[in-house]
Amino acid sequence: MGDPGDGGPPSLHAGDRIAVVAPSGPADPALLERGCAVLRGLGLDVVVGKHALDHNPSGLTYLAGSDADRAADLQAAWCDPRIAAVFCARGGYGATRVLDHLDWDAMAGAAPKLLHGSSDITALHTAFGRRLSVPTSFGPMVASLIADADPEAVAHLREGVLGAGAAVRGTHALRGGRVSGVLTGGNLALLTSLIGTPYAPEPAAGRIAFLEDVDEAPYRVDRMLTQLLQSGWFDGVAGIVLGTWIGCGDLDAVFADRLTPIGAPILAGVPVGHGPRQLTLRLGAGAVLDADALVLSPSTGGGPERRTPPSGPGSEETL
Amino acid sequence: MGDPGDGGPPSLHAGDRIAVVAPSGPADPALLERGCAVLRGLGLDVVVGKHALDHNPSGLTYLAGSDADRAADLQAAWCDPRIAAVFCARGGYGATRVLDHLDWDAMAGAAPKLLHGSSDITALHTAFGRRLSVPTSFGPMVASLIADADPEAVAHLREGVLGAGAAVRGTHALRGGRVSGVLTGGNLALLTSLIGTPYAPEPAAGRIAFLEDVDEAPYRVDRMLTQLLQSGWFDGVAGIVLGTWIGCGDLDAVFADRLTPIGAPILAGVPVGHGPRQLTLRLGAGAVLDADALVLSPSTGGGPERRTPPSGPGSEETL
Repeated sequence: MGDPGDGGPPSLHAGDRIAVVAPSGPADPALLERGCAVLRGLGLDVVVGKHALDHNPSGLTYLAGSDADRAADLQAAWCDPRIAAVFCARGGYGATRVLDHLDWDAMAGAAPKLLHGSSDITALHTAFGRRLSVPTSFGPMVASLIADADPEAVAHLREGVLGAGAAVRGTHALRGGRVSGVLTGGNLALLTSLIGTPYAPEPAAGRIAFLEDVDEAPYRVDRMLTQLLQSGWFDGVAGIVLGTWIGCGDLDAVFADRLTPIGAPILAGVPVGHGPRQLTLRLGAGAVLDADALVLSPSTGGGPERRTPPSGPGSEETL
Repeated sequence: MGDPGDGGPPSLHAGDRIAVVAPSGPADPALLERGCAVLRGLGLDVVVGKHALDHNPSGLTYLAGSDADRAADLQAAWCDPRIAAVFCARGGYGATRVLDHLDWDAMAGAAPKLLHGSSDITALHTAFGRRLSVPTSFGPMVASLIADADPEAVAHLREGVLGAGAAVRGTHALRGGRVSGVLTGGNLALLTSLIGTPYAPEPAAGRIAFLEDVDEAPYRVDRMLTQLLQSGWFDGVAGIVLGTWIGCGDLDAVFADRLTPIGAPILAGVPVGHGPRQLTLRLGAGAVLDADALVLSPSTGGGPERRTPPSGPGSEETL
């Protein structure tokens, strides 16, 4: 496991042991095993959580295992000093329910490590960022690595978790400009579902907000963005990055109406979220958004930024 | 317009003028006119808001008119002393957007009157309850009075807005018991979409919480109930009434897991919300939930409670 250095994110090394857990929905065992094989192909030592393939005992078929067991797997992995990272098996739904079952004091006492996942795992990204102040890795779920992620996505995942992260390119800017800030956000529905709870997303002020979702009609996306706006989450946001919106219809008018007036640079069409090419972002870490060049880069290495690495103590460590 | 008396809700009289406005989605003009005819059949003098049939100018096709115009219609009707009640044309989406465009001081300065609508209009019920402290009427939308509401629903609407409200019956209790309290709640998705905003629902402590929704998968209903639970909204709730859940699949396990442990009486299967028989409830007004007898009644008249009307000054006035 790499040293986080001067506030940078921890990165993995070949040979590190990682745990695969299922805090949300049940994963197909065959797809999960194929995803684990991909991770082993990256040189990682993969162990699967005890309850990762459980079914919920209360008839809630959309959940993998009981809340207590899903939380126990996550907490055991996070608190095990032999484990360098925790990868989530799949999304769906269930992560918000796990939050009440975690011993946050015990979690905070463990050495920071990398949490990786996306979609419903936004609940964990948000709560971990708030409660544990650790950067996390937003990218393809383990059980989706074959079905949904292409070779470029796997290469990008490797750079994201074994390196310092690579840049991602968008397709168009809704508003130009270049800003830097800590990257935050995730799945829109999950972010809104945490508002008002003890795990609410920290305000995006001064940060770059990343948003994506799947299978939400335009009026629903509007309603969720309106809730974030009315709750003040966007106040003072430095920039906005829009990922994939598979199955959400045409959102141009929604984004033009709800986001463009904020006045921050907005990069759209970044292949992060759902869909066939799911690249990997580091949330809670510094990033540079260049909406004119259509690029979002880690602030300490990766993509175009790597051509001019920052000098000074510690910078090599995170490259 | 009836006198609200000792805290009871204002009721209409035959001949009263009511305004029909569209704070949410666009209504079909023919259906709206047919709904207005039903209201005229109840003896009401119906006027339609200036912008009720507008289309949104920003390409947001799910909205009727611009936010400012939808709000202007609502505010003009609310602040017009000649108008005794404001009925909403249809739901869909858009009411949360209107909230930012209302002059709440002006609204609070107007004499209390009756707001009627359901579904997306939950945003108005909630905000009006919080900002204006007025009871509101949750029932079928004007443009749905022919298509979705049967004669019993129209009769129940008459009793709800021209009388003191009639009881509603459920089909089964998830937990028995008899409690009284002010009725609150509405559409689940709308309630959650207001959390964290200046229009957030007041806590349900000591109240009877009514909930309904349409076309939300069980995992989504679970996620929304989990947000309400984690935000503390249910803390100390006196009772729970579950309306219709059209297109939501089998929610038995969800309710058993998320609501039954709260420990309050729960009456399910009440025909309020969506679907072919939409009865009318008075939110923000006192109610009695008898989950053993499967009945929710207004606390000052209506249904079984009417057999033993309360004595004392003013009680006749609200019956």
